[in-house]
Amino acid sequence: MDIDLARQLSQDGESKILLFVMDGLGGLPHLKTGRTELESADIPHLDRLARESACGFTVPVAPGVTPGSGPGHLALFGYDPFKYNIGRGVLEAAGIDFDLRPQDVAARGNFCTVDGKGVVTDRRAGRITTETCGELCAALRQIRLDGVELFVEPVREHRFVFVLRGDDLSEAVADTDPQREGAEPLEPGATAPEGKATARLVARFVDEAKRILADPSTRSASSGQASSGQASPANMLLLRGFARRPDWPSMSEVFKLRPAAVAHYPMYRGLAKLVGMEALPAGPGLDDSIATVRENWGRFDYFFLHYKHTDSAGEDGDFERKVAKLEEVDAAIPSLLELGPDVLMVAGDHSTPAALAAHSWHPVPFLMRAPWTRADPCTAFNEPALLQGSLGTFPAVEALPLAMAHAGRLTKYGA
Amino acid sequence: MDIDLARQLSQDGESKILLFVMDGLGGLPHLKTGRTELESADIPHLDRLARESACGFTVPVAPGVTPGSGPGHLALFGYDPFKYNIGRGVLEAAGIDFDLRPQDVAARGNFCTVDGKGVVTDRRAGRITTETCGELCAALRQIRLDGVELFVEPVREHRFVFVLRGDDLSEAVADTDPQREGAEPLEPGATAPEGKATARLVARFVDEAKRILADPSTRSASSGQASSGQASPANMLLLRGFARRPDWPSMSEVFKLRPAAVAHYPMYRGLAKLVGMEALPAGPGLDDSIATVRENWGRFDYFFLHYKHTDSAGEDGDFERKVAKLEEVDAAIPSLLELGPDVLMVAGDHSTPAALAAHSWHPVPFLMRAPWTRADPCTAFNEPALLQGSLGTFPAVEALPLAMAHAGRLTKYGA
Repeated sequence: MDIDLARQLSQDGESKILLFVMDGLGGLPHLKTGRTELESADIPHLDRLARESACGFTVPVAPGVTPGSGPGHLALFGYDPFKYNIGRGVLEAAGIDFDLRPQDVAARGNFCTVDGKGVVTDRRAGRITTETCGELCAALRQIRLDGVELFVEPVREHRFVFVLRGDDLSEAVADTDPQREGAEPLEPGATAPEGKATARLVARFVDEAKRILADPSTRSASSGQASSGQASPANMLLLRGFARRPDWPSMSEVFKLRPAAVAHYPMYRGLAKLVGMEALPAGPGLDDSIATVRENWGRFDYFFLHYKHTDSAGEDGDFERKVAKLEEVDAAIPSLLELGPDVLMVAGDHSTPAALAAHSWHPVPFLMRAPWTRADPCTAFNEPALLQGSLGTFPAVEALPLAMAHAGRLTKYGA
Repeated sequence: MDIDLARQLSQDGESKILLFVMDGLGGLPHLKTGRTELESADIPHLDRLARESACGFTVPVAPGVTPGSGPGHLALFGYDPFKYNIGRGVLEAAGIDFDLRPQDVAARGNFCTVDGKGVVTDRRAGRITTETCGELCAALRQIRLDGVELFVEPVREHRFVFVLRGDDLSEAVADTDPQREGAEPLEPGATAPEGKATARLVARFVDEAKRILADPSTRSASSGQASSGQASPANMLLLRGFARRPDWPSMSEVFKLRPAAVAHYPMYRGLAKLVGMEALPAGPGLDDSIATVRENWGRFDYFFLHYKHTDSAGEDGDFERKVAKLEEVDAAIPSLLELGPDVLMVAGDHSTPAALAAHSWHPVPFLMRAPWTRADPCTAFNEPALLQGSLGTFPAVEALPLAMAHAGRLTKYGA
């Protein structure tokens, strides 16, 4: 369902929808046991839920396509991830809870190492510590650019966020990151005529930054410590993904929902805010997050509840830890059900099989407990069992419209 | 398959396709037995047919979307219901077999009640009888508008069809129906510059109608009876869905079929005529309809046979009657098979579960008996059994191309 049709058919109501996202949910068989993480976990509550629900798999973006966290979540929020595409700079800013304003232009930054000829020898500057990254960002903040405000904010290790704030800025600026070692950083040129002035500002920043980073006293100056006199490996920077905060129709406008996000990690709160969700404070534990949902139950009719650790364990290739995290989630399912959502979706933004130690393209386990579902022969919440589900394998972007239908929030199409 | 591709690949032939539509076919489990209408019905012929056919479910419009009868049927006829969208006025005119001409503009009308200040207090005028509706329509037909012919035809209870016939009319006229009580009827303004003249004619009609309807002698005058002197609750009218008959490519042009519709209810005949089917006279019973198909078997190679009562029972929330109607259909299946169609589809335009007493968004049971189908493990014609079907859950608009393929009526795509 595209956004225009959703706008036309959605209607207000009293019913409540709860989307519970286990990040990186889907898995692959363990090489020794032949069983996936979900099959290996002892998850009686999820299994029972599967027996009571309509089950299947979501395809986050397209068959064979491994999604980043942005598209994976946007699809579950009901936004076609091809049409609603977030620039890297914006996602990175969201990831550190940076309050990006509509006129700002943000880019993702890497500190890197260049040799004497200016050729990149390490795109990640030996993965400097986050502390060092913070010191270098502080040093770069001293740069002054005419007519614009400048932000340089550390993310993690060699990664930072670069933001320009001012009037008439443009996102039409080319990456300076050559995306490989053995090449020089690229000039920050304009990708369209309207990007020329912004590209000049970026070029000026890069020039000054190069000078500051090449100076061995920089770290000590900013941290107030005596210089070691040694050249830092982080003697240059690369920028990519220049982007403005997108101006998207909100979930309340399109779907007539009052939506809230409960996520401990800033990036997911940032994503949720892009579609107009109110981000509620959430503690690190799933119990904390569920408590937040409970306290705010009356104020909203759509909740996005995010659980991160299944993905982290998968990314680390730690099969056993992912199993343990699934069991941790399972123990919390009764308290989710006690909230009494009319429609409960248990979903993932993508699969992160421990066997791959990375996001993957595999369809993602999904269940929807709702009024008016048909009988569904699926008897457990794991990949082989879910193949019996009545929902089959379907685009993730269809999950919200389906939930809306079951919640009585969609009117008829056509006479 | 879109219309352009269908036009390119379709070819003439001798094979015959029969689409049998059980309106509102799909259901939901009964709260007590846990079995759907189809599961509860004794339908040995349909079950046997399912064993011999390729089975699955159609999605009439889009996942989660509850279709009206128009989109539900157009999809089965092979027309994308988003691209081929019928205005309410046209569907309403089709529903009373009104012979809408290409230049006519039609709207759906409601008689309503307004208070002394002109505010709508009942959008349905207390659901006046169809007889009263007819009397009021006769009174309104006396209105004269410069240069155009006027039709005001009763439908049922408070509903009527309003048609303007003349040159240079436009459908770009706004609804006068505020869609809620407590508001005044809206002005019939133009929604585009070309609608101005037509909007003025509509405004003139509404003014005169208001005067006639407010006069207590109107009913008696038109019916030739003595006036009761009482004010009628139907003292105003609302118009919505101004539309022209769409000019769509016909099934014979696109699919190279000679198509016929056999439907007792006028609306379905009207829909079929919009895609170029010839509407054959059909009696009220299914046996009558099948007899009509038999008599015309030689003249056409595509038949759309419509059965209404499954939907009516579902709409009334009458589970047992829907079961009985399914059994009535089942008894007629042998005579359908005796016709010897090369491809037989048994389908529904949408689900109408008795549990909801309304159209719903649930995928619709479907089977296709045809040459060259593969083995299909489905053993019965009901919702749980059809989950085993080889066709899975697919867009209804794909049903006709699939049938065409099995009928040998589609050529190869590409070299």
